[in-house]
Amino acid sequence: MRRAARGARTPAAVLPAARAQGGRDVTGGHLVSFVGAGPGDPELITQKGLRRLREAEVVLHDRLIPRALLDETAPGALVLDVGKAPGRPCLGQGRINRLLVDWARRRGRVVRLKGGDPAVFGRLGEEIQAVREAGLPFEVVPGVTAATAAAARAGISLTERGSASTLVLATGTDHTGHRPVALDWEFLARVEGTLVFYMPVGSLDAITASLTALGRDPREPALLIERAGTEGERVTAGRLGDIAGAARAAGCTPPAVLVTGPTVASASVPHGVPPRLAGVGA
Amino acid sequence: MRRAARGARTPAAVLPAARAQGGRDVTGGHLVSFVGAGPGDPELITQKGLRRLREAEVVLHDRLIPRALLDETAPGALVLDVGKAPGRPCLGQGRINRLLVDWARRRGRVVRLKGGDPAVFGRLGEEIQAVREAGLPFEVVPGVTAATAAAARAGISLTERGSASTLVLATGTDHTGHRPVALDWEFLARVEGTLVFYMPVGSLDAITASLTALGRDPREPALLIERAGTEGERVTAGRLGDIAGAARAAGCTPPAVLVTGPTVASASVPHGVPPRLAGVGA
Repeated sequence: MRRAARGARTPAAVLPAARAQGGRDVTGGHLVSFVGAGPGDPELITQKGLRRLREAEVVLHDRLIPRALLDETAPGALVLDVGKAPGRPCLGQGRINRLLVDWARRRGRVVRLKGGDPAVFGRLGEEIQAVREAGLPFEVVPGVTAATAAAARAGISLTERGSASTLVLATGTDHTGHRPVALDWEFLARVEGTLVFYMPVGSLDAITASLTALGRDPREPALLIERAGTEGERVTAGRLGDIAGAARAAGCTPPAVLVTGPTVASASVPHGVPPRLAGVGA
Repeated sequence: MRRAARGARTPAAVLPAARAQGGRDVTGGHLVSFVGAGPGDPELITQKGLRRLREAEVVLHDRLIPRALLDETAPGALVLDVGKAPGRPCLGQGRINRLLVDWARRRGRVVRLKGGDPAVFGRLGEEIQAVREAGLPFEVVPGVTAATAAAARAGISLTERGSASTLVLATGTDHTGHRPVALDWEFLARVEGTLVFYMPVGSLDAITASLTALGRDPREPALLIERAGTEGERVTAGRLGDIAGAARAAGCTPPAVLVTGPTVASASVPHGVPPRLAGVGA
């Protein structure tokens, strides 16, 4: 089994469909679906993701998923919260992997529901590996990732011909909860285009100081978007050099994304943002 | 009007909701919704996107949207194909902008349906600007972008702690249809993480040659994913140094994305890929 999985690491010209199933045939309707729940607004799940959720016999979900989606599960479906939350014992990744495999073996259709898109800062690789090594069939149903949801709420594009032909997504927090030292900050300071940091709130000063110290223009427009598309949505605007202070003054809290780059200059809050938002921070 | 829009370019601490409406109140149910149609599989549109499509009085759509979605429009809705297609006169961006504004003024609810996510290589900025300058209210409904849909089909994560803490999306084609010379290729060659090129087919040799000439490892695993999640889906695997040749040999055609980076090594075609795909390219 392990040997087969390793052999699969040499890419072939066209990938065979059997490989994801650990070399076995699909049996008895067992299937692990990694489903992107979208960025917070329950209406931003895809049709396919919602269908899988309704079909599921077991749902293992993260903390930051739209809670209203759990009402869509079938009567009798087992719903397990495996999210990390402050003030309660934290389920390690290894434990989540084992739960996923155990439940997939015991019951047929398992949905692993993750916030945003599972392939973007979602620990998807580790969970796929566990499922693959167990010889279980799986699929990934993509979702709307926080970066594009936040851009949508701010009414901006993340790319633009001429001024932003690359888009860089980076994590703003490492496993210790601080600015990731392993990131190539010189590289990030140099990006000609749009930069989006996921989970930046706890390290906003460090992120912006690193970027500007390494040459990024402190006058570059920046947005901190909290809970895009949900009831607690808030958009704080500033410049790269002062957004950390503005966010602190406004009492910003996770989850949020930081967006900086030339297209941010045209940000506005589109139609449909609840009116009470206009007064937030006043 | 123009003056107000310019004034809006100086970010304020918290953005007022009125700004997107060009300083006017929303009147008579007029609303332009920029909706992400997702990457090709009609089931990958969001709940909200589908709802907007069903409510629309006018739909202006691109060529590369799932055609089945057009069956969801209301009876009597006006559906206009404003996509660029080979062999027919091409609608310029200025003409599309004018159509959008004219129809929004004449009828109430207009949906501008774009493939993938509108904020990622979708010319969204130019269309928002036109709508904003016309004083019309708008919203953006985000969608699943091609990069994460392609990753989902290949069964990989695009990020991974330690080896891929950044994800870079870049355009593989400029307005002349060639490798974009304006891109910072040294920067792209240096990315420690995952690189995804949109629209790379016509310039695959130039893209991969540039990256490897500037120091990116030609042995790095690479995937070319055509039409992710649709009937014509195909995944061609190789190394950065040989994927262009493999794609040529397999007769790959647009639309597709190129994905390269450490997480690509664990690619496989997940459960659910139609069986005939296993034989494609044989």
